Amino acid sequence: MESVFSYSRLYEFTCSVFRGMGCSEADAAVAARVLLSADMRGIESHGVARLSGYVRLWEAGRINALPDIKIVYETPSTAVVDGDAGLGLVVAPYAMQVAIDKAKIAGTGWVSVRNSNHFGIAGIHAMMALEHDMTGIAMTNASALVAPTFSKERMLGTNPIAVAIPAGNHPAFVADFATTTASNGKLEILQRKNAEAPLGWVIDKEGSETTDANILKQGGLMLPLGSDREHGSHKGYALGSIVDIFSAVLSGASYGPWAPPFPAYVPVPQDMPGKGLGHFFGAMRVDAFRPANEFKQHMDQWIERFRNATPAPGHDKVLIPGDPEREMEVIRAQEGIPLVESVVGELRAVGERFGIQLV
Amino acid sequence: MESVFSYSRLYEFTCSVFRGMGCSEADAAVAARVLLSADMRGIESHGVARLSGYVRLWEAGRINALPDIKIVYETPSTAVVDGDAGLGLVVAPYAMQVAIDKAKIAGTGWVSVRNSNHFGIAGIHAMMALEHDMTGIAMTNASALVAPTFSKERMLGTNPIAVAIPAGNHPAFVADFATTTASNGKLEILQRKNAEAPLGWVIDKEGSETTDANILKQGGLMLPLGSDREHGSHKGYALGSIVDIFSAVLSGASYGPWAPPFPAYVPVPQDMPGKGLGHFFGAMRVDAFRPANEFKQHMDQWIERFRNATPAPGHDKVLIPGDPEREMEVIRAQEGIPLVESVVGELRAVGERFGIQLV
Repeated sequence: MESVFSYSRLYEFTCSVFRGMGCSEADAAVAARVLLSADMRGIESHGVARLSGYVRLWEAGRINALPDIKIVYETPSTAVVDGDAGLGLVVAPYAMQVAIDKAKIAGTGWVSVRNSNHFGIAGIHAMMALEHDMTGIAMTNASALVAPTFSKERMLGTNPIAVAIPAGNHPAFVADFATTTASNGKLEILQRKNAEAPLGWVIDKEGSETTDANILKQGGLMLPLGSDREHGSHKGYALGSIVDIFSAVLSGASYGPWAPPFPAYVPVPQDMPGKGLGHFFGAMRVDAFRPANEFKQHMDQWIERFRNATPAPGHDKVLIPGDPEREMEVIRAQEGIPLVESVVGELRAVGERFGIQLV
Repeated sequence: MESVFSYSRLYEFTCSVFRGMGCSEADAAVAARVLLSADMRGIESHGVARLSGYVRLWEAGRINALPDIKIVYETPSTAVVDGDAGLGLVVAPYAMQVAIDKAKIAGTGWVSVRNSNHFGIAGIHAMMALEHDMTGIAMTNASALVAPTFSKERMLGTNPIAVAIPAGNHPAFVADFATTTASNGKLEILQRKNAEAPLGWVIDKEGSETTDANILKQGGLMLPLGSDREHGSHKGYALGSIVDIFSAVLSGASYGPWAPPFPAYVPVPQDMPGKGLGHFFGAMRVDAFRPANEFKQHMDQWIERFRNATPAPGHDKVLIPGDPEREMEVIRAQEGIPLVESVVGELRAVGERFGIQLV
């Protein structure tokens, strides 16, 4: 069973909840927009379904609703931002804006963030650069669920990377992907359907292959992009590690198995080597490399050529990164956002907590 | 059959060949050092085995032995370098040095390169940053051999990414990987052994799965990291695309299926949209984010924690990216570089071309 909600209804509700937590009007609006961008783009696992999780983290004293987010270290093209334990949904746009401002002057801007929380989908932050004719980059570390190649210990999060590149007449190139074989959201979809996971997505706590989509609840682990050594899992492990290091070792956040967990019932790790979650953002002016019109003309040609690549049997076209999410945004703007009953129930309970009705 | 050569013998020989092509003394030395670093690090496919390929490209007029390599566009943190059709082995260190020099002043430096050729292994260029207490990044596009997800057309090269991150007491973290499931070098090893390739490495020209390690010679294609859509090949496709765009669309090199091929007998594509191959380099001072000693202390802790992650059954330890290549360098420095007879034969023929003996 699903119910369908308009964007504006969910937006008003979500804003009210964040205000209920004590966020400023402006921060609540930013956080609601960022959170709901996931639902609009078809990445339901990172959207309003997580609102109750953010509220529980706040109740547990792990989220500061009125953070003093600030730059604590900088050079002409870099900065470190301390999120003061604020919502990542608010800290991330602040830090991405710092990267964009640096890029305006220095050509590029690179910002590593400490003391933050989960920031929603990486892509929406990277896309902030597009309106400035810049390439945007966003990544974050996350609670450890992933086994490095040759290991059976949870050492890395799904550590996503997003890269948004402007084009001319075509929509932008927007890649946004976890550095694991499959995202946690894909596992959750299988769990709801009682379906099995393909081999290569997860292993059990002993390190053995399994198709059990519920295995994470029994100590199982996710696998890095590539699945196994023979298929390049050491590359996915390296990518996830780079995200962890750029996000957390550069900034002074907590890294690897010490990254703070999203579920509020999971205790914060002992002896955390840094503060909170870490993110990393980049912005590169395209005209820091060549005139913007030249770049866009060639980016259009790149997109056209790849879109027209010969399809393999059983497929009718080749996609450009960002196509499915953009198409979903159009559909959801027209038809609304479908939510499964369990999520609706959780939202109603969250609303009651603050005396807000989900109408 | 293999013969073993000391580094210094191969270095002298390779220098002489590059000088024979007309390279300056200094350029020949740089090119030989970069090329042989692949053999030393155990990536034989990109080492001296390719020397005859470079010579054939030069004979075909596609490599300029006396290039005027220069910055053609710049901002405080960026530059575009035109390689003037020089050896990538020489153009790449020049461009990486520009990135390092920019980073000294602006905190980071980012250089996109056009009009270059194959640059050897990406890792050796990224590692130039380490001695400056900087993180180094190197990537390059390459001749199209790879099918985007849902396609059966060769659109991307193996487009490697290398990231080198300095540590304190531990050796640096050095990731260097093709954005395909397996590298071309791994396929060549199977070909020599007449062995089959695992499913998920390659497809035939019709787009069907195959285990034929020789399939590239019959129009087959390599698969992006992830192998198939279910296992995340759209992520490998996105990564390879990002490398192509940063290396070639940003700089004005030739991109996608128009990237110039390495084998001199393959004609240059018609209507190339830019000049030569493209590369992309980055350098980030670690003290552009936090004091270098703090960063190194935490990077050491990161490395120790991951090295001590619980191994999965059948494995005795977890590796840090760069471990296998560094261990191989120690072995090869002691025991020399083994070359298969076919490579030795090609080298002797190349030597004869210039009146140089491989002793």
